[in-house]
Amino acid sequence: MYCFVNGLKLEVTKATLNINDLAILRGYGIFDFFRTVDNKPLFLEDHLDRFYNSSKIAHLPISFSKSEVIEQVNSLLTANKLPISGIRMVLTGGYSEDGYSVGKPNLIITQGPITFPAEELYTNGVKLITHNFLRELPEVKTVNYMTGIWLKSKIKEEKAFDALYVNNGQVLELTRSNIFIITKEGKIITPQKNILKGVTRKKVLEMAASHYDIEEREISIDELLQAKEAFLTGTTKKVLPITAVDNQKIGDGKPGPISRQLLEMFNQFEKEYMDK
Amino acid sequence: MYCFVNGLKLEVTKATLNINDLAILRGYGIFDFFRTVDNKPLFLEDHLDRFYNSSKIAHLPISFSKSEVIEQVNSLLTANKLPISGIRMVLTGGYSEDGYSVGKPNLIITQGPITFPAEELYTNGVKLITHNFLRELPEVKTVNYMTGIWLKSKIKEEKAFDALYVNNGQVLELTRSNIFIITKEGKIITPQKNILKGVTRKKVLEMAASHYDIEEREISIDELLQAKEAFLTGTTKKVLPITAVDNQKIGDGKPGPISRQLLEMFNQFEKEYMDK
Repeated sequence: MYCFVNGLKLEVTKATLNINDLAILRGYGIFDFFRTVDNKPLFLEDHLDRFYNSSKIAHLPISFSKSEVIEQVNSLLTANKLPISGIRMVLTGGYSEDGYSVGKPNLIITQGPITFPAEELYTNGVKLITHNFLRELPEVKTVNYMTGIWLKSKIKEEKAFDALYVNNGQVLELTRSNIFIITKEGKIITPQKNILKGVTRKKVLEMAASHYDIEEREISIDELLQAKEAFLTGTTKKVLPITAVDNQKIGDGKPGPISRQLLEMFNQFEKEYMDK
Repeated sequence: MYCFVNGLKLEVTKATLNINDLAILRGYGIFDFFRTVDNKPLFLEDHLDRFYNSSKIAHLPISFSKSEVIEQVNSLLTANKLPISGIRMVLTGGYSEDGYSVGKPNLIITQGPITFPAEELYTNGVKLITHNFLRELPEVKTVNYMTGIWLKSKIKEEKAFDALYVNNGQVLELTRSNIFIITKEGKIITPQKNILKGVTRKKVLEMAASHYDIEEREISIDELLQAKEAFLTGTTKKVLPITAVDNQKIGDGKPGPISRQLLEMFNQFEKEYMDK
């Protein structure tokens, strides 16, 4: 499999960074991740916008223009012949003289296979556990997943699908996904602040706007537990129903009709995007 | 300069990790850092204890025993001929198949020059700014310094020395140091929970115990602002007086006698440790 490191195409097995990179020494870096379908990137412009925005907030200049990055992505699509894939762009803090100062950022672009949630998870919905946590620089897609990865053993123990971050009683986001609830009145609500704004979240909001009442605002954990339906969104998860949180059922404990409809709408939306 | 990567000694310029390491992809790793004085490690056993403890909590097994790590450290001391230095042990999440699962951790040991705070900072004390933040896994020395490094430009703007993390009105720690206050009654207090317990912090507590009343407990930001003296501790900072926080003076705005005495005691303690 080929990748790009600072504009050079090479085999992943030969792609390295010096140990003085600030991602290795201090976990300092940002990234973004998108899917390809039929060898074509999905929502690439949204992911690029977010990637360049993250780089700005993190004070990590990218020494390639968006069109140069797109060229590198296309070159991987040709070289790797992996039509259904995930493409990751990582921008690290660069080589640091003193182990704490930002250097010239290193840009890595990789492509790899992806797995989707099993069909039965869409049929039965998924269970979450909650964890008190507010991501640092929440609006930036940093490489810092210390808490998310640390929680993996707990998630497995509790036979859950993922963890939901809660801060001061407010529902925020999952380790790598956004959350939505549907109230008894049929209103669709998703948190607005202190979260990473996912591209799938954005597309669902756009799609749903013409069919439903939508609110972006704070959601308390009580409101989630009393919701009629809940679902999560993410690049590889699309629209996945949530049916239990900390062993309490959401709604009747089964995926609801609106979540199901939104998944269908999303799949249709993706198809239309691809056919354009 | 030589370093060790997974037990192999090599030139730092040739020391690399593959881009699939979980430190690069997800900022997942732990580390520790100690000084050498006259080519001899300072408080090595404390740093090793903490490093192995961090590795345990982070679910990252170290495939070298403590005595093997000490052998590698000694080998660097001989090869690099840098009697006054900082030695860093980094343990990363290892090469990840899926970009999220922990692999076999990579162990890196590097040695480099260190700089101490200028003498005038000990004479005049330093100014801090506060920042609302609770480090994730605070008792673990993770590689995650996203917030600390991100704050650097703000610290510079405010002409401060460092940032003090405050959570729910409670003073916690600095980006890379611990904090102590001295009350009007001459009691020495330092936070006990939600912090990384520094080795210098531990040594100061041990030294001070026979001369002063000591408490490890929560400190509110108000209590800090009303303290008679305050100081910070760290491996390269030793005992450094804090004389202002968010532009409010601590005590009379000058380093106090107890902070000064503790620095002298620490220097003496370090000397005795080295002469042993």
